[in-house]
Amino acid sequence: MRLRHKPWAQDKLNEYPHFVPQKPEELVGKWQTRFAKEQPIHLEVGSGKGRFIVEMAKAHPNINYISMELQTSVVVSVLELQIEAQLPNLQIVNGDGRDLSQYFSPGELDRVYLNFSDPWPKKRHEKRRLTSPDFLRQYQAILKPQGEIHFKTDNQGLFEYSLSSMSQYGMSFKQVWLDLHTSDYEGNIMTEYEEKFSSRGSRIYRLEANFKTE
Amino acid sequence: MRLRHKPWAQDKLNEYPHFVPQKPEELVGKWQTRFAKEQPIHLEVGSGKGRFIVEMAKAHPNINYISMELQTSVVVSVLELQIEAQLPNLQIVNGDGRDLSQYFSPGELDRVYLNFSDPWPKKRHEKRRLTSPDFLRQYQAILKPQGEIHFKTDNQGLFEYSLSSMSQYGMSFKQVWLDLHTSDYEGNIMTEYEEKFSSRGSRIYRLEANFKTE
Repeated sequence: MRLRHKPWAQDKLNEYPHFVPQKPEELVGKWQTRFAKEQPIHLEVGSGKGRFIVEMAKAHPNINYISMELQTSVVVSVLELQIEAQLPNLQIVNGDGRDLSQYFSPGELDRVYLNFSDPWPKKRHEKRRLTSPDFLRQYQAILKPQGEIHFKTDNQGLFEYSLSSMSQYGMSFKQVWLDLHTSDYEGNIMTEYEEKFSSRGSRIYRLEANFKTE
Repeated sequence: MRLRHKPWAQDKLNEYPHFVPQKPEELVGKWQTRFAKEQPIHLEVGSGKGRFIVEMAKAHPNINYISMELQTSVVVSVLELQIEAQLPNLQIVNGDGRDLSQYFSPGELDRVYLNFSDPWPKKRHEKRRLTSPDFLRQYQAILKPQGEIHFKTDNQGLFEYSLSSMSQYGMSFKQVWLDLHTSDYEGNIMTEYEEKFSSRGSRIYRLEANFKTE
Protein backbone atom coordinates (compact mmCIF):
# COMPACT_ATOMS: atom_id res chain seq x y z
CA MET A 1 0.00 0.00 0.00
CA ARG A 2 1.05 3.60 -0.47
CA LEU A 3 2.55 4.93 2.72
CA ARG A 4 2.27 8.48 3.85
CA HIS A 5 5.05 9.70 6.03
CA LYS A 6 3.68 10.39 9.48
CA PRO A 7 6.44 11.79 11.70
CA TRP A 8 4.02 11.98 14.65
CA ALA A 9 3.13 8.27 14.42
CA GLN A 10 5.53 6.94 17.05
CA ASP A 11 4.44 9.61 19.53
CA LYS A 12 0.83 8.60 19.00
CA LEU A 13 1.58 4.92 19.64
CA ASN A 14 3.41 5.87 22.82
CA GLU A 15 0.31 7.65 24.11
CA TYR A 16 -1.68 4.38 24.22
CA PRO A 17 0.53 1.81 25.95
CA HIS A 18 -2.52 -0.18 27.11
CA PHE A 19 -3.36 -0.86 23.44
CA VAL A 20 0.17 -0.83 22.00
CA PRO A 21 2.66 -2.47 24.37
CA GLN A 22 5.91 -0.53 24.25
CA LYS A 23 8.11 -3.56 24.82
CA PRO A 24 6.20 -6.42 23.23
CA GLU A 25 9.28 -8.67 23.36
CA GLU A 26 8.94 -8.66 27.16
CA LEU A 27 5.50 -10.25 26.86
CA VAL A 28 6.75 -13.60 25.55
CA GLY A 29 4.56 -16.23 27.19
CA LYS A 30 2.51 -13.58 29.01
CA TRP A 31 0.14 -12.26 26.39
CA GLN A 32 -2.96 -13.40 28.27
CA THR A 33 -2.14 -10.80 30.94
CA ARG A 34 -2.79 -8.06 28.37
CA PHE A 35 -6.41 -9.03 27.85
CA ALA A 36 -9.55 -8.73 29.94
CA LYS A 37 -10.20 -12.46 29.69
CA GLU A 38 -8.04 -15.52 29.23
CA GLN A 39 -9.18 -17.05 25.94
CA PRO A 40 -7.67 -18.26 22.63
CA ILE A 41 -5.29 -15.85 20.94
CA HIS A 42 -5.38 -15.17 17.19
CA LEU A 43 -2.59 -13.20 15.53
CA GLU A 44 -2.78 -11.34 12.25
CA VAL A 45 0.62 -10.92 10.61
CA GLY A 46 0.58 -7.79 8.47
CA SER A 47 -2.62 -6.07 9.58
CA GLY A 48 -2.34 -3.08 7.28
CA LYS A 49 -4.82 -0.42 8.35
CA GLY A 50 -6.55 -2.91 10.61
CA ARG A 51 -10.14 -3.10 9.49
CA PHE A 52 -10.09 -6.90 9.37
CA ILE A 53 -8.76 -7.49 12.85
CA VAL A 54 -10.82 -4.76 14.50
CA GLU A 55 -14.01 -6.10 12.93
CA MET A 56 -13.04 -9.65 13.90
CA ALA A 57 -12.44 -8.55 17.48
CA LYS A 58 -15.87 -6.92 17.56
CA ALA A 59 -17.55 -9.99 16.06
CA HIS A 60 -15.76 -12.53 18.29
CA PRO A 61 -15.50 -11.24 21.87
CA ASN A 62 -14.52 -14.76 22.99
CA ILE A 63 -11.20 -14.54 21.12
CA ASN A 64 -8.21 -12.37 21.95
CA TYR A 65 -6.66 -10.72 18.90
CA ILE A 66 -3.19 -9.40 18.27
CA SER A 67 -2.55 -7.14 15.30
CA MET A 68 1.03 -7.13 14.05
CA GLU A 69 2.25 -4.64 11.50
CA LEU A 70 5.74 -3.42 10.71
CA GLN A 71 5.05 0.04 9.30
CA THR A 72 4.65 2.50 12.15
CA SER A 73 2.66 4.90 9.98
CA VAL A 74 0.13 2.13 9.27
CA VAL A 75 -0.04 0.82 12.83
CA VAL A 76 -1.41 4.25 13.70
CA SER A 77 -4.47 3.51 11.58
CA VAL A 78 -5.12 0.32 13.55
CA LEU A 79 -4.74 2.27 16.77
CA GLU A 80 -7.19 4.92 15.62
CA LEU A 81 -9.82 2.24 15.02
CA GLN A 82 -9.11 0.78 18.45
CA ILE A 83 -9.33 4.20 20.16
CA GLU A 84 -12.79 4.41 18.65
CA ALA A 85 -13.78 0.83 19.48
CA GLN A 86 -12.05 0.39 22.88
CA LEU A 87 -12.01 -3.39 22.48
CA PRO A 88 -10.80 -5.35 25.52
CA ASN A 89 -9.76 -8.26 23.27
CA LEU A 90 -7.40 -6.45 20.88
CA GLN A 91 -3.72 -5.65 21.27
CA ILE A 92 -1.57 -3.93 18.68
CA VAL A 93 2.07 -4.68 17.99
CA ASN A 94 4.37 -2.52 15.92
CA GLY A 95 6.66 -5.37 15.03
CA ASP A 96 8.27 -7.57 12.46
CA GLY A 97 6.64 -10.85 11.39
CA ARG A 98 10.04 -12.23 10.45
CA ASP A 99 10.96 -13.02 14.02
CA LEU A 100 7.80 -14.07 15.80
CA SER A 101 9.60 -16.12 18.42
CA GLN A 102 10.91 -12.90 19.94
CA TYR A 103 7.29 -12.07 20.80
CA PHE A 104 5.59 -15.39 21.50
CA SER A 105 6.38 -18.58 23.37
CA PRO A 106 5.87 -22.08 21.89
CA GLY A 107 2.16 -22.88 21.65
CA GLU A 108 1.05 -19.47 22.90
CA LEU A 109 -1.24 -18.84 19.90
CA ASP A 110 -4.26 -20.65 18.49
CA ARG A 111 -4.44 -19.17 15.03
CA VAL A 112 -2.48 -17.03 12.57
CA TYR A 113 -4.19 -14.90 9.93
CA LEU A 114 -2.39 -13.88 6.75
CA ASN A 115 -4.40 -11.50 4.59
CA PHE A 116 -3.29 -10.22 1.19
CA SER A 117 0.36 -10.58 2.01
CA ASP A 118 2.88 -9.15 -0.40
CA PRO A 119 3.17 -11.69 -3.26
CA TRP A 120 6.91 -11.14 -3.90
CA PRO A 121 6.48 -12.64 -7.38
CA LYS A 122 10.16 -12.91 -8.27
CA LYS A 123 11.63 -16.31 -7.59
CA ARG A 124 14.65 -14.77 -5.88
CA HIS A 125 12.32 -13.15 -3.33
CA GLU A 126 10.60 -16.43 -2.44
CA LYS A 127 11.97 -16.32 1.10
CA ARG A 128 10.11 -13.09 1.76
CA ARG A 129 6.69 -14.66 1.06
CA LEU A 130 4.80 -15.20 4.30
CA THR A 131 4.00 -18.79 3.31
CA SER A 132 7.57 -19.87 2.59
CA PRO A 133 9.09 -22.63 4.72
CA ASP A 134 10.99 -20.38 7.15
CA PHE A 135 7.79 -18.52 8.00
CA LEU A 136 5.79 -21.74 8.29
CA ARG A 137 8.37 -23.02 10.75
CA GLN A 138 7.87 -19.87 12.82
CA TYR A 139 4.09 -20.19 12.86
CA GLN A 140 4.38 -23.84 13.83
CA ALA A 141 6.64 -22.91 16.74
CA ILE A 142 4.24 -20.42 18.28
CA LEU A 143 0.96 -22.19 17.49
CA LYS A 144 -0.65 -24.90 19.56
CA PRO A 145 -0.38 -28.35 17.90
CA GLN A 146 -3.93 -28.05 16.57
CA GLY A 147 -3.45 -24.39 15.69
CA GLU A 148 -4.49 -23.12 12.28
CA ILE A 149 -3.36 -20.74 9.58
CA HIS A 150 -6.09 -18.85 7.73
CA PHE A 151 -4.83 -17.23 4.58
CA LYS A 152 -6.52 -15.21 1.88
CA THR A 153 -5.24 -13.39 -1.15
CA ASP A 154 -6.30 -12.20 -4.57
CA ASN A 155 -2.88 -13.09 -5.97
CA GLN A 156 -3.11 -16.26 -8.03
CA GLY A 157 0.64 -16.85 -8.10
CA LEU A 158 1.00 -16.48 -4.34
CA PHE A 159 -1.91 -18.83 -3.74
CA GLU A 160 -0.50 -21.46 -6.10
CA TYR A 161 2.86 -21.14 -4.39
CA SER A 162 1.29 -21.40 -0.94
CA LEU A 163 -0.63 -24.59 -1.77
CA SER A 164 2.64 -26.21 -2.82
CA SER A 165 4.76 -24.77 -0.05
CA MET A 166 2.37 -25.59 2.77
CA SER A 167 1.65 -29.11 1.55
CA GLN A 168 5.35 -29.79 1.04
CA TYR A 169 5.97 -28.57 4.56
CA GLY A 170 3.56 -31.27 5.71
CA MET A 171 0.51 -29.13 6.34
CA SER A 172 -2.99 -30.18 5.38
CA PHE A 173 -5.86 -28.05 4.19
CA LYS A 174 -9.07 -28.18 6.18
CA GLN A 175 -10.76 -26.29 3.39
CA VAL A 176 -9.88 -24.33 0.27
CA TRP A 177 -11.94 -21.64 -1.50
CA LEU A 178 -11.03 -20.75 -5.07
CA ASP A 179 -13.59 -17.95 -5.34
CA LEU A 180 -14.49 -16.86 -1.83
CA HIS A 181 -17.00 -14.17 -2.69
CA THR A 182 -19.22 -16.48 -4.73
CA SER A 183 -18.99 -19.29 -2.17
CA ASP A 184 -21.33 -20.01 0.70
CA TYR A 185 -18.66 -19.07 3.25
CA GLU A 186 -20.28 -17.00 5.97
CA GLY A 187 -18.78 -14.35 8.20
CA ASN A 188 -16.10 -13.12 5.81
CA ILE A 189 -14.74 -9.79 6.94
CA MET A 190 -13.14 -7.90 4.11
CA THR A 191 -9.86 -6.07 4.45
CA GLU A 192 -9.61 -2.61 2.91
CA TYR A 193 -7.59 -4.11 0.07
CA GLU A 194 -10.03 -6.97 -0.46
CA GLU A 195 -12.99 -4.63 -0.87
CA LYS A 196 -11.15 -2.53 -3.40
CA PHE A 197 -9.86 -5.35 -5.56
CA SER A 198 -12.82 -7.70 -5.42
CA SER A 199 -15.06 -4.86 -6.56
CA ARG A 200 -12.86 -4.73 -9.67
CA GLY A 201 -13.57 -8.38 -10.36
CA SER A 202 -10.56 -10.12 -8.80
CA ARG A 203 -11.16 -13.56 -7.38
CA ILE A 204 -10.37 -13.99 -3.72
CA TYR A 205 -8.64 -17.26 -2.73
CA ARG A 206 -8.75 -18.58 0.82
CA LEU A 207 -7.51 -21.59 2.77
CA GLU A 208 -7.52 -22.94 6.29
CA ALA A 209 -4.57 -25.16 7.12
CA ASN A 210 -3.05 -26.95 10.05
CA PHE A 211 0.10 -28.80 10.85
CA LYS A 212 -0.08 -32.55 10.94
CA THR A 213 0.11 -34.03 14.37
CA GLU A 214 1.27 -37.58 14.63
CA MET B 1 -20.45 -37.49 -21.56
CA ARG B 2 -23.42 -38.56 -23.64
CA LEU B 3 -23.13 -42.21 -24.47
CA ARG B 4 -24.38 -43.75 -27.64
CA HIS B 5 -25.35 -47.37 -27.40
CA LYS B 6 -22.96 -49.38 -29.50
CA PRO B 7 -23.98 -53.05 -29.43
CA TRP B 8 -21.02 -53.97 -31.65
CA ALA B 9 -18.49 -52.38 -29.28
CA GLN B 10 -17.46 -55.51 -27.40
CA ASP B 11 -16.97 -57.41 -30.65
CA LYS B 12 -14.73 -54.66 -31.92
CA LEU B 13 -12.57 -54.72 -28.77
CA ASN B 14 -12.26 -58.50 -29.13
CA GLU B 15 -10.84 -58.06 -32.60
CA TYR B 16 -7.76 -56.23 -31.30
CA PRO B 17 -6.43 -58.28 -28.39
CA HIS B 18 -2.89 -56.92 -28.92
CA PHE B 19 -4.19 -53.43 -28.09
CA VAL B 20 -7.00 -54.40 -25.68
CA PRO B 21 -6.01 -57.33 -23.46
CA GLN B 22 -8.99 -59.58 -23.00
CA LYS B 23 -8.08 -60.62 -19.46
CA PRO B 24 -6.27 -57.60 -18.04
CA GLU B 25 -6.56 -58.99 -14.51
CA GLU B 26 -4.13 -61.74 -15.55
CA LEU B 27 -1.49 -59.09 -16.30
CA VAL B 28 -0.97 -58.05 -12.67
CA GLY B 29 2.75 -57.39 -12.31
CA LYS B 30 3.39 -58.24 -15.97
CA TRP B 31 2.37 -55.11 -17.83
CA GLN B 32 5.84 -54.47 -19.21
CA THR B 33 5.44 -57.64 -21.33
CA ARG B 34 2.66 -55.91 -23.26
CA PHE B 35 4.89 -53.13 -24.56
CA ALA B 36 7.68 -52.98 -27.11
CA LYS B 37 10.10 -51.53 -24.55
CA GLU B 38 10.45 -51.74 -20.80
CA GLN B 39 10.02 -48.15 -19.55
CA PRO B 40 7.94 -46.21 -17.01
CA ILE B 41 4.20 -46.87 -17.09
CA HIS B 42 1.64 -44.07 -16.85
CA LEU B 43 -2.04 -44.89 -16.35
CA GLU B 44 -4.99 -42.67 -17.16
CA VAL B 45 -8.06 -43.52 -15.11
CA GLY B 46 -11.16 -42.56 -17.08
CA SER B 47 -9.78 -41.95 -20.55
CA GLY B 48 -13.04 -41.01 -22.21
CA LYS B 49 -12.62 -40.98 -25.96
CA GLY B 50 -8.87 -41.13 -25.56
CA ARG B 51 -7.44 -38.11 -27.32
CA PHE B 52 -5.30 -37.16 -24.32
CA ILE B 53 -3.61 -40.50 -23.83
CA VAL B 54 -3.13 -41.20 -27.53
CA GLU B 55 -1.51 -37.79 -28.05
CA MET B 56 0.62 -38.29 -24.93
CA ALA B 57 1.75 -41.68 -26.22
CA LYS B 58 2.72 -40.09 -29.54
CA ALA B 59 4.57 -37.24 -27.82
CA HIS B 60 6.41 -39.42 -25.29
CA PRO B 61 7.62 -42.64 -26.92
CA ASN B 62 9.83 -43.27 -23.87
CA ILE B 63 6.79 -43.83 -21.66
CA ASN B 64 4.35 -46.74 -21.74
CA TYR B 65 0.72 -45.69 -21.43
CA ILE B 66 -2.32 -47.56 -20.24
CA SER B 67 -5.76 -46.15 -20.95
CA MET B 68 -8.47 -47.31 -18.56
CA GLU B 69 -12.12 -46.62 -19.19
CA LEU B 70 -15.21 -48.36 -17.88
CA GLN B 71 -17.70 -47.64 -20.67
CA THR B 72 -17.26 -50.19 -23.43
CA SER B 73 -18.88 -47.89 -25.98
CA VAL B 74 -16.28 -45.22 -25.18
CA VAL B 75 -13.29 -47.56 -25.07
CA VAL B 76 -14.06 -48.23 -28.72
CA SER B 77 -13.20 -44.60 -29.50
CA VAL B 78 -9.79 -45.01 -27.86
CA LEU B 79 -9.25 -48.18 -29.85
CA GLU B 80 -10.15 -46.44 -33.10
CA LEU B 81 -7.49 -43.81 -32.45
CA GLN B 82 -4.98 -46.54 -31.66
CA ILE B 83 -5.85 -48.54 -34.81
CA GLU B 84 -5.01 -45.38 -36.71
CA ALA B 85 -1.83 -44.61 -34.72
CA GLN B 86 -0.51 -48.16 -34.08
CA LEU B 87 1.45 -46.99 -31.05
CA PRO B 88 3.77 -49.61 -29.49
CA ASN B 89 3.56 -47.81 -26.13
CA LEU B 90 -0.21 -47.78 -25.61
CA GLN B 91 -2.45 -50.43 -24.12
CA ILE B 92 -6.18 -50.08 -23.60
CA VAL B 93 -8.16 -51.54 -20.70
CA ASN B 94 -11.92 -51.77 -20.56
CA GLY B 95 -12.02 -51.78 -16.79
CA ASP B 96 -13.12 -50.23 -13.55
CA GLY B 97 -10.94 -47.67 -11.75
CA ARG B 98 -12.54 -48.62 -8.45
CA ASP B 99 -10.45 -51.75 -8.09
CA LEU B 100 -7.06 -51.01 -9.55
CA SER B 101 -5.27 -53.63 -7.47
CA GLN B 102 -6.97 -56.31 -9.52
CA TYR B 103 -4.99 -55.03 -12.51
CA PHE B 104 -1.69 -53.81 -11.09
CA SER B 105 0.88 -54.98 -8.59
CA PRO B 106 2.34 -52.73 -5.86
CA GLY B 107 4.70 -50.16 -7.37
CA GLU B 108 4.03 -51.28 -10.94
CA LEU B 109 3.15 -47.76 -12.14
CA ASP B 110 5.03 -44.46 -12.22
CA ARG B 111 2.19 -42.01 -12.71
CA VAL B 112 -1.60 -41.78 -12.66
CA TYR B 113 -3.49 -39.21 -14.74
CA LEU B 114 -6.96 -38.06 -13.77
CA ASN B 115 -8.55 -35.76 -16.32
CA PHE B 116 -11.91 -34.08 -15.91
CA SER B 117 -13.23 -36.77 -13.64
CA ASP B 118 -16.89 -36.74 -12.71
CA PRO B 119 -17.24 -34.11 -9.94
CA TRP B 120 -19.99 -35.92 -8.02
CA PRO B 121 -20.95 -32.64 -6.35
CA LYS B 122 -23.32 -34.06 -3.76
CA LYS B 123 -21.72 -34.67 -0.39
CA ARG B 124 -23.27 -38.13 -0.18
CA HIS B 125 -21.43 -39.09 -3.37
CA GLU B 126 -18.02 -38.01 -2.06
CA LYS B 127 -16.74 -41.58 -2.10
CA ARG B 128 -17.21 -41.74 -5.86
CA ARG B 129 -14.85 -38.82 -6.52
CA LEU B 130 -11.58 -40.09 -7.93
CA THR B 131 -9.60 -38.02 -5.40
CA SER B 132 -11.38 -39.33 -2.30
CA PRO B 133 -9.29 -41.21 0.27
CA ASP B 134 -10.22 -44.74 -0.87
CA PHE B 135 -9.05 -43.94 -4.39
CA LEU B 136 -5.88 -42.25 -3.15
CA ARG B 137 -5.08 -45.37 -1.16
CA GLN B 138 -5.43 -47.41 -4.36
CA TYR B 139 -3.16 -45.13 -6.37
CA GLN B 140 -0.59 -45.21 -3.59
CA ALA B 141 -0.66 -49.01 -3.61
CA ILE B 142 0.10 -49.37 -7.30
CA LEU B 143 2.47 -46.41 -7.70
CA LYS B 144 6.17 -46.44 -7.00
CA PRO B 145 7.09 -44.51 -3.82
CA GLN B 146 8.08 -41.45 -5.88
CA GLY B 147 5.11 -41.91 -8.22
CA GLU B 148 2.91 -38.95 -9.08
CA ILE B 149 -0.71 -38.09 -9.65
CA HIS B 150 -1.43 -35.49 -12.33
CA PHE B 151 -4.95 -34.17 -12.14
CA LYS B 152 -6.81 -31.55 -14.11
CA THR B 153 -10.39 -30.39 -14.10
CA ASP B 154 -12.55 -27.38 -14.90
CA ASN B 155 -14.72 -28.10 -11.86
CA GLN B 156 -13.93 -25.64 -9.08
CA GLY B 157 -15.68 -27.65 -6.38
CA LEU B 158 -13.88 -30.86 -7.29
CA PHE B 159 -10.53 -29.07 -7.33
CA GLU B 160 -11.15 -27.45 -3.94
CA TYR B 161 -12.16 -30.85 -2.57
CA SER B 162 -9.11 -32.53 -4.06
CA LEU B 163 -6.67 -30.02 -2.55
CA SER B 164 -8.14 -30.76 0.88
CA SER B 165 -8.51 -34.48 0.42
CA MET B 166 -5.04 -35.07 -0.99
CA SER B 167 -3.28 -32.88 1.59
CA GLN B 168 -5.21 -34.52 4.41
CA TYR B 169 -4.18 -37.88 3.06
CA GLY B 170 -0.60 -36.72 3.47
CA MET B 171 0.19 -35.91 -0.15
CA SER B 172 2.14 -32.86 -1.19
CA PHE B 173 1.78 -30.75 -4.29
CA LYS B 174 4.78 -30.36 -6.53
CA GLN B 175 2.94 -27.64 -8.38
CA VAL B 176 -0.56 -26.20 -8.69
CA TRP B 177 -2.05 -24.24 -11.60
CA LEU B 178 -5.21 -22.21 -10.97
CA ASP B 179 -5.61 -21.16 -14.60
CA LEU B 180 -3.68 -23.59 -16.75
CA HIS B 181 -4.41 -22.07 -20.13
CA THR B 182 -3.05 -18.65 -19.21
CA SER B 183 0.02 -20.11 -17.47
CA ASP B 184 3.41 -20.80 -18.93
CA TYR B 185 2.91 -24.57 -18.64
CA GLU B 186 4.20 -26.19 -21.80
CA GLY B 187 3.15 -29.39 -23.44
CA ASN B 188 -0.46 -29.41 -22.29
CA ILE B 189 -2.50 -31.87 -24.31
CA MET B 190 -6.17 -31.06 -24.20
CA THR B 191 -8.84 -33.68 -23.75
CA GLU B 192 -11.95 -33.44 -25.93
CA TYR B 193 -13.84 -32.09 -22.92
CA GLU B 194 -11.14 -29.56 -22.06
CA GLU B 195 -11.14 -28.06 -25.53
CA LYS B 196 -14.89 -27.69 -25.51
CA PHE B 197 -15.22 -26.11 -22.07
CA SER B 198 -12.15 -23.93 -22.05
CA SER B 199 -13.26 -22.39 -25.33
CA ARG B 200 -16.38 -21.31 -23.45
CA GLY B 201 -14.26 -19.51 -20.89
CA SER B 202 -13.96 -22.09 -18.10
CA ARG B 203 -10.73 -22.04 -16.13
CA ILE B 204 -8.74 -25.22 -16.10
CA TYR B 205 -7.17 -26.25 -12.78
CA ARG B 206 -4.23 -28.63 -12.58
CA LEU B 207 -1.99 -30.17 -9.97
CA GLU B 208 0.92 -32.57 -9.69
CA ALA B 209 1.10 -34.43 -6.40
CA ASN B 210 3.05 -37.19 -4.77
CA PHE B 211 2.91 -39.24 -1.64
CA LYS B 212 5.28 -38.35 1.13
CA THR B 213 8.08 -40.74 1.64
CA GLU B 214 9.72 -40.85 5.04
